[in-house]
Amino acid sequence: MIGEEPSKIRTPEAAERAFIVSALRAVNVSESDANDVADVLIAADLRGVESHGIARLDHFYVRRIEAGVVDPRASFTTLREAPTLTAFDAGNGLGHPASKRAMARTLEKAREHGIAFSTVRNSNHYGIAAYYAMMALPHDMIGISSTNATRLAVATFGREKIAGTNPIAVAIPAHDEPPFVLDMATTAVTFGRLEVAERKGKALKPGWAVGPDGRETLDATLAKTKGALLPLGGSGTENGGHKGYGLMALVEILCAVLGGGPFGNQLKVPEDGLHGGYTSHFFGALRIDAMRDLGPFGADLDRELRTFKESRTAPGADHVAVAGDPEHEATARFRREGVPINDKVFEALDAMAERLGIAKLERFVLA
Amino acid sequence: MIGEEPSKIRTPEAAERAFIVSALRAVNVSESDANDVADVLIAADLRGVESHGIARLDHFYVRRIEAGVVDPRASFTTLREAPTLTAFDAGNGLGHPASKRAMARTLEKAREHGIAFSTVRNSNHYGIAAYYAMMALPHDMIGISSTNATRLAVATFGREKIAGTNPIAVAIPAHDEPPFVLDMATTAVTFGRLEVAERKGKALKPGWAVGPDGRETLDATLAKTKGALLPLGGSGTENGGHKGYGLMALVEILCAVLGGGPFGNQLKVPEDGLHGGYTSHFFGALRIDAMRDLGPFGADLDRELRTFKESRTAPGADHVAVAGDPEHEATARFRREGVPINDKVFEALDAMAERLGIAKLERFVLA
Repeated sequence: MIGEEPSKIRTPEAAERAFIVSALRAVNVSESDANDVADVLIAADLRGVESHGIARLDHFYVRRIEAGVVDPRASFTTLREAPTLTAFDAGNGLGHPASKRAMARTLEKAREHGIAFSTVRNSNHYGIAAYYAMMALPHDMIGISSTNATRLAVATFGREKIAGTNPIAVAIPAHDEPPFVLDMATTAVTFGRLEVAERKGKALKPGWAVGPDGRETLDATLAKTKGALLPLGGSGTENGGHKGYGLMALVEILCAVLGGGPFGNQLKVPEDGLHGGYTSHFFGALRIDAMRDLGPFGADLDRELRTFKESRTAPGADHVAVAGDPEHEATARFRREGVPINDKVFEALDAMAERLGIAKLERFVLA
Repeated sequence: MIGEEPSKIRTPEAAERAFIVSALRAVNVSESDANDVADVLIAADLRGVESHGIARLDHFYVRRIEAGVVDPRASFTTLREAPTLTAFDAGNGLGHPASKRAMARTLEKAREHGIAFSTVRNSNHYGIAAYYAMMALPHDMIGISSTNATRLAVATFGREKIAGTNPIAVAIPAHDEPPFVLDMATTAVTFGRLEVAERKGKALKPGWAVGPDGRETLDATLAKTKGALLPLGGSGTENGGHKGYGLMALVEILCAVLGGGPFGNQLKVPEDGLHGGYTSHFFGALRIDAMRDLGPFGADLDRELRTFKESRTAPGADHVAVAGDPEHEATARFRREGVPINDKVFEALDAMAERLGIAKLERFVLA
């Protein structure tokens, strides 16, 4: 998380994988699907996006399978197919294996035809959007990934929750520089930021959230329990809130309406928070060398990214970053040091391990 | 413009077209290209986006041709072509005819292959991004259009201008509802908003702009003359400014780096403001019926858009809109009432008409 020091309690990457796989195996997920989930959750933790890593394993995945609302043995099917386009149905299975399959097929099609696009409906929470966009990088392609999500945010001038944090991720390979990897919620902040503020007893910042009456609020608890998130750009149109709302709606339309999944009022979360099949995704891939030779493209992108990074800073800032750089650095660091996991998360994982009758997740304290 | 009443001085749409065409014919633009420019400028004025309509005719197009920095008889060429992808070169001609041609070709390719994408380099200011995205609508396709622009904005934590207002437009046809048409600058506000604030002697809003030291400023003149725009989301990362910056950089990469045009420090504006060949665009199209039958898609999109529009409002707001609705309504109104043109703009156009030896633009005052 931006500005927070990672936990000193760490786990080796291999141990994290083994733990995730055994937890999912315990609820009847196949070895291969469990490894897909592990790939995505570990990538999130390595990238420093703790909120989307192993912290979600129990509540978002294991418990929903135990409750029978997500199918651990779902069939992944093709609804419609053209040479460059595919509409998939995840059969209410886990979002990660479905999304990996969809993106892999999208990359194959883009390799053959230059560009490809796909949707997946009847799926579930797929982790970090960036993971699937980044699958394009080793293929010298541009990757795109997006998903809708349960409704947490208001429209500009609205007071009802009408869309989720609906992230957009785009990954573009450079030559010497790390890839450009944008992965952004289309709300001003994610729900996790309200939780952090509440836990720390801090006020929210203006432009983050509204109360139940649709008026901006700085009260974290009120916003979290009865309010809603604001779109990127904040309240009203003065600072471009209608642009964030527009992007949020765009994601909803491309994932759910184009994909044929549930949207809008169909995405009401039940009291117990346990739902399945609510989520739709879209994926895209574009083959760079169909537009420009890879050599000059990579050299120019390096030059462009360095122009940003070497530009003079505002007072108090120590450097200008490029989308994906902080996560790229975090990955190198945590691969070396071990994956940081919050003590609260370890507690919850220990309880889950006991419930499932599997070995606890290995840990060590960083010197 | 949001919240401003349109000018009472109007011109008939046909008169606006005739005037634009004769001005461009006077500087050696072909009849067909001049009509392309007129199409896009009139669409902007009808949509209420006055800043991108006939107001730009003299300074952005006619004068640049007169100064010899834009070629009125440019050749539009294909640099590279795959079944679904094309890289075009506009030969430093006007942006509008080049972009109409590029998007038309992109639609043809998407009709055949399901999806298509193209770039145009060595082009010039193309008017409103939405125009080209909306070319997809009568074909039951989703259209995308984007362009880079001369540098006006800082990166998050930066103080140097590193990118333009780099808009993104996406148009999606509904059935009964007006189409969803998002057309957004990736900065918090456009440069025009600083000009309006300065003209009215008003302070800027926080989150709009910085002074020359990279610190936020509310001083419109300082921001305009020596400062820069902030990305959507404002200063720093607290309200998501890094997301706006990420989108801005993404547009720059897809248009200019992928398209092989100039970018970054190559886009310095000369003292006299007259430059040519600086601009790159990208276009995309996706055939909806390759993913889902048009009937259910249109019905679901209608339902989704109505969910937004019928959602309860925040205090003080009279309704929730959907991207493109205000412009859709403005178009119907101005087609009926005549196209509003500001008196300052008429003055400048009269002076231009005299310079070029053409008839002045017809006008009437709305009762």
